[in-house]
Formats: sequence, C-alpha cells, structure tokens
Amino acid sequence: MNFTCDKTNLQEAISIAQKAVTGKSTMPILQGLLLNARGNKLTINSSDIDLGIETKCNANIKEEGSIVVDSKLFGDIIRKLPNSEIQIKSISEGTIEITCQRSRFTLVHMKADEFPQLPYIDEDEIISIPQKLIKNMIRSTIFAIAIDETRPILTGILFEIKNRTLNLVALDGFRLALKKETIDTEQEFSAVIPGKTLHEVVKILEDEGDVDITFTTNHILFNLGETKVVSRLLEGEFIKYQAIIPEEHELSISVNRASLLNSIERASLVSKDASSNLIKFNISEDNIVITSNSQLGDVREEVSIKLLKGNELQIAFNSKYLIDALKIMEEETITLQFTSAVSPCIIKNIENDNVIYLVLPVRISNS
Amino acid sequence: MNFTCDKTNLQEAISIAQKAVTGKSTMPILQGLLLNARGNKLTINSSDIDLGIETKCNANIKEEGSIVVDSKLFGDIIRKLPNSEIQIKSISEGTIEITCQRSRFTLVHMKADEFPQLPYIDEDEIISIPQKLIKNMIRSTIFAIAIDETRPILTGILFEIKNRTLNLVALDGFRLALKKETIDTEQEFSAVIPGKTLHEVVKILEDEGDVDITFTTNHILFNLGETKVVSRLLEGEFIKYQAIIPEEHELSISVNRASLLNSIERASLVSKDASSNLIKFNISEDNIVITSNSQLGDVREEVSIKLLKGNELQIAFNSKYLIDALKIMEEETITLQFTSAVSPCIIKNIENDNVIYLVLPVRISNS
Repeated sequence: MNFTCDKTNLQEAISIAQKAVTGKSTMPILQGLLLNARGNKLTINSSDIDLGIETKCNANIKEEGSIVVDSKLFGDIIRKLPNSEIQIKSISEGTIEITCQRSRFTLVHMKADEFPQLPYIDEDEIISIPQKLIKNMIRSTIFAIAIDETRPILTGILFEIKNRTLNLVALDGFRLALKKETIDTEQEFSAVIPGKTLHEVVKILEDEGDVDITFTTNHILFNLGETKVVSRLLEGEFIKYQAIIPEEHELSISVNRASLLNSIERASLVSKDASSNLIKFNISEDNIVITSNSQLGDVREEVSIKLLKGNELQIAFNSKYLIDALKIMEEETITLQFTSAVSPCIIKNIENDNVIYLVLPVRISNS
Repeated sequence: MNFTCDKTNLQEAISIAQKAVTGKSTMPILQGLLLNARGNKLTINSSDIDLGIETKCNANIKEEGSIVVDSKLFGDIIRKLPNSEIQIKSISEGTIEITCQRSRFTLVHMKADEFPQLPYIDEDEIISIPQKLIKNMIRSTIFAIAIDETRPILTGILFEIKNRTLNLVALDGFRLALKKETIDTEQEFSAVIPGKTLHEVVKILEDEGDVDITFTTNHILFNLGETKVVSRLLEGEFIKYQAIIPEEHELSISVNRASLLNSIERASLVSKDASSNLIKFNISEDNIVITSNSQLGDVREEVSIKLLKGNELQIAFNSKYLIDALKIMEEETITLQFTSAVSPCIIKNIENDNVIYLVLPVRISNS
C-alpha cells in the first residue's frame, strides 16, 4: 500500500469512521480502522458488530492495499499533523510509514482479512429523505427509548413506513415519543433500530442533502454518498403503540412552551434528590399551579393558560419526562391534553401536527 | 431578614462565593452560603476552612438578618429564576421565602452563628497589583505544583517579594516554574499559598482593575473591592529554588515555540501509554531531531533551530513536562539552555526575561 492524501480530508473521514469504534469491544480488531486504498479512493471501514461505517476520501494511490490501524492512535496522529499532504505506505510486513512535512511515523498494523465486512445490501429499493429531516426526527424521539435492557426491543426506535408517512416511535413504559413526516415512497416497512447506533447516526447526518435508506430483513443502510452506515435491526415485535395513545380527551390547554418548561425546571429543583422528581399540576381556568416539596422546602409556580377547554384537574408527574419532551419541542405555543388524573397526558405542537409526546402521570394519594 | 435584589447581581455574587464550596467537607454548614443582609448590601460568605470568600451585592434591605442556605440548591434556584427582582424574606424560624414574578419557593436554612468567620486581617500594608498580571503569573506557574502530597509544601506556589520584584515559584521535583514581575512596594515577604485555593482565585480575578494583597503570618488576603478572598498559607520552608537553577550553560538554542510544541505532542503519541512519556532530543547544528518509540511504532520529528551556541547534544525528557511549559508560554521564539544530558534544561522567553521553566532530563542508557 502506498498513497498520498490531503490531511483535512483524511481527518474528516477518520472522524466519521470513528463513530462506530466504541472502545468497548473485546475483539482487538474492532479497535481498528480498515484502510483500503483502491482506484482513486481511500475507503475507511469501522465496525462494532451492531453498527458498521464505510466512508471514502480522495487519495492519490500509487500502490493498492488494505491494512487495519489502531483507531485512536492513527486518528490522534493524523489530527496532530500539519495541514499538508500526508503519505502512507507499507514499509515491511506489518508496518506502515506515515510522513508529512518533517514528521515521520512508523506504526505496526493488523491484517485486513480479519476485519468484519459490511453486510452486502442490495440498494434496489431506496427511500430518499432529506438528512436534516431524519436527523430531526431521530433527535425528537431518541430521548424516550428505554435505558433498562429488560425489554431489549424498547432500547430502539421504531421506523414505520405506511401510507407515504414515516413514523418514528420510542417508548420506555413511562412515556412515548412519536414523530411523523410525509415521504415520497410506495414502500411499507416496519423495523426497530438500536438507539445506540442512532446516537452515532445523528452525528454523521448533515443539514444539507438527502440520505438514501434501504431496509433488509436484518439491517438498515443509510447511504450518504461517500459514507454508508449499516445498523443491525433489533429482533422482536414492537409494542402496538397506537393502542396506547388515547384518541379522546376531557381537558385541553394551550400554554407557552418556554414558560411551562422554566416553571417545571424550577419546581423540580426542590424534589431533585428524591427519586420520584414528583411535581403536581393544579389546572384551573386561567393558570396551571405547579407545586413540589421535599424536606428541603417547597415551591409554587404559576403558568398562564392561553386557552382551556374542559374541566379543572389535579394531576402529578415525574418532572423529568415532561422536561425531556418540552426541551426538544420548538414551537412557541403547545397543547396539553388530559383525560383524568390517572390517564396519560398528551403534548402536541399547535401548528405542526407531526409530533405526539405521551407522559404517564404519577398516582398520588390526595388526587 | 427581608430584602429585594436584582437577579443578575445576586447570581454573579453567588457564582463567586460558590468557588469556596468544595462539596468535599464533612461539615454540613460548609455546603452552605452565609447570607448577611445589612445596610444596603447583601454579603455572601463561603468557606472550606483553607479558603474563605466574602462578596457583596446591592440589595434593598427592609429587615436585616443572617442565615445559611444550601449553596447548590439556592444557586440553582436563583439561576433558574427570571431576570427580574427577587425578594428573600424569613417567614418562620428556620425558613425563608424566595419570590420572583410568579415563582415562590420556601426553603429551610441553617443558622448563621455556626458559620466560620473570615479571619480578621488588618489591611494596613497592602500591595496593589493589576488583577490580570497576578492571574497570568499564577496560570504560568500553577501547572508545576506537586500533585503528590508527600511533601505538602510543594502543593503550593511560593509568593516571594524582594527588591520590588514578585516571584511566583512552583516545583514538583521533576520541573520548576518561575515567573517574576516588578511591583511597586517596599515590602519583603515570602509565603506559600495552597495550589487548590489558587485554582479558585484565578477564576475570580478579572482582566481589569487592581487587587490589593495583604500577607499575615498565616493568611493571604486578595481584596478585589466587593470581593475578598482569604487563603490559609502552607506551613514550612519552601525549597531554596535559586540553588536549583543553573547559572551557566554549555548549549543554547532558539526555536519556534509552536513548531517545537507540535512536534513534541506528535512524538509523545506513540509513547503515551508508557508511563515514562519518553522522548529523545538529538540537537545538531540545524535541527532538533525528536524521536520516540514503543511497541506501537516509532516517530521521528525535525524542528529547525534558529540559532545555536554550543555543542551538539543528545538528551531525553518526559514529554509531559515540556508540553506543560511550552503550552503556557506565549512568545513566538523561545530559548532552551542545556549543560549536559543529565543536567536540567532551562526554557526561557527571548523578549521578556520574566519566566524560567526548568525540566529535569531522563537518564537513558545510550546517552
């Protein structure tokens, strides 16, 4: 192997590929990056078994070849080199030389043939989606996945395509997040993608351009042109989430999102150390009065209601679940819908009817 | 107690006072801030025994009084309140009420009389120094204090005033940092101030205005006007550092600081995991050739020498000590002075003769 390439391009490609190197694998080869010099491109592969990334950068290839280098050390060296042309070449069995201006490194490397291949995926039926849109959809739902591994299927996000609509759904038994967008496809599909791989995918997605998505029985492929990201799917049936979302409600209120969020955040300060994060809502004609207390003290917050339809209600929540949802929403005014003190609360945007957050209340003795 | 004050002013004062709340004390009262409302000022005190801070903010005091509130909870509440007027008043024995717009908190508090007093310091003989200057002097030396507590005196910085010069000196047995500045005082003094309190002091010092410094037998007072910081001094005799700094040298070279730093940082990458961080310098007429190696690979870096006086030399260092010093220096060109492969290396600025870094070499078998 022998090639030259621009430091900045190489550094960007390494940075993308490193997203799949978790540092938690027991297989030493997975701490590495596969460098494959062929044609006029250097291809870099990385894998943590669940997630595989392949990305390319332009290179002037004098001699083709493949090696595996330690991801961290190789990445650190390239990052620290001057912004100039870098030459990388094999100098002996198991050793490469990296030269850039007046710096010269020799590094031991691993063999390429032990590196796991990216699964072959036939890109016959792709779904093209703007990268910014899918990034926003993932960010709007990923906070609601289950951390607890007791039901592995809930540690992922459901990608469901039907009737020209893409739905992303995450739920953890206490709250649910649903984001939907219209997309241009005839396909119908349903798959659950691990949350931990989507955490990396959102870092790679950009604000411009489309991503081509392909589903197979076991994998999803995000093709961004020079970069391909392949994630394993989670096995099993997702919860029938439509059955959880109530279709009707007894009480609906519109409030300023920032005011409500600030009041809840303040109210949660005194109950923070208690495991429940319990806050109480007392919803009347004009105001939500939010209260909370612990041995440290108590708090009372008032938030104006812009529009109320229905009857007064007292209901209690774990403040964390409300804060997570309100923080990720963007609209100025939002709607909250309630049925009773023991039924879920629904949080929606006023303008865009493309997001539903559901939060279960906490039963309290005096409600 | 009953007063009103502006949220922003109060938040700034809390933020300064919190620098002395370490969260590591076993005395619950030291997790608190002493609020003392008197005249037209709210005074906030904090203490971790070694370090005490007192700071004031304007307040409209309706009823004077003193209480101790939990530093973290009180600080979080004030930070989260709207930018508006805040009222704080005692509502019963052991409880205060905080109100701001439509938020109302009641908090339990501790008693003021248990809070440690700031030691009284007679400010008869002050030394006035620009805050920016002393901040820079502390930052230029603090990295060289000993982390290891086996010789407690070395965990502090020596403040030495003689002949109208303030010297700050830190050393840990492997390297030494000395920064000196001319100051306008007749006083002569020498005291060692704990590094951990100086880490907080540099965060409080600003870029404008003077700080009035007073030394007593056991304390140093930094008076910034509305804020006073008092630190205990370390007991014992500091090392006679002048005896360590060689007055003569056999070899002197001038190099570009950034080039040398970048090369050393790159060279240290391959030896990073080894405990020694060993890098070797081969100094010849035109270049320093820096090499390092480990089982991961090896590296060779060349740095141009601008001016060399003396003979060629091979010498080895722990790269960390050189990097720490070179990173904090600001001038473009610096001078390195050597005597032999087993004698300390001196690093100096070219223009400002106000800083000396000394680094001990590592003995290697083939030198």
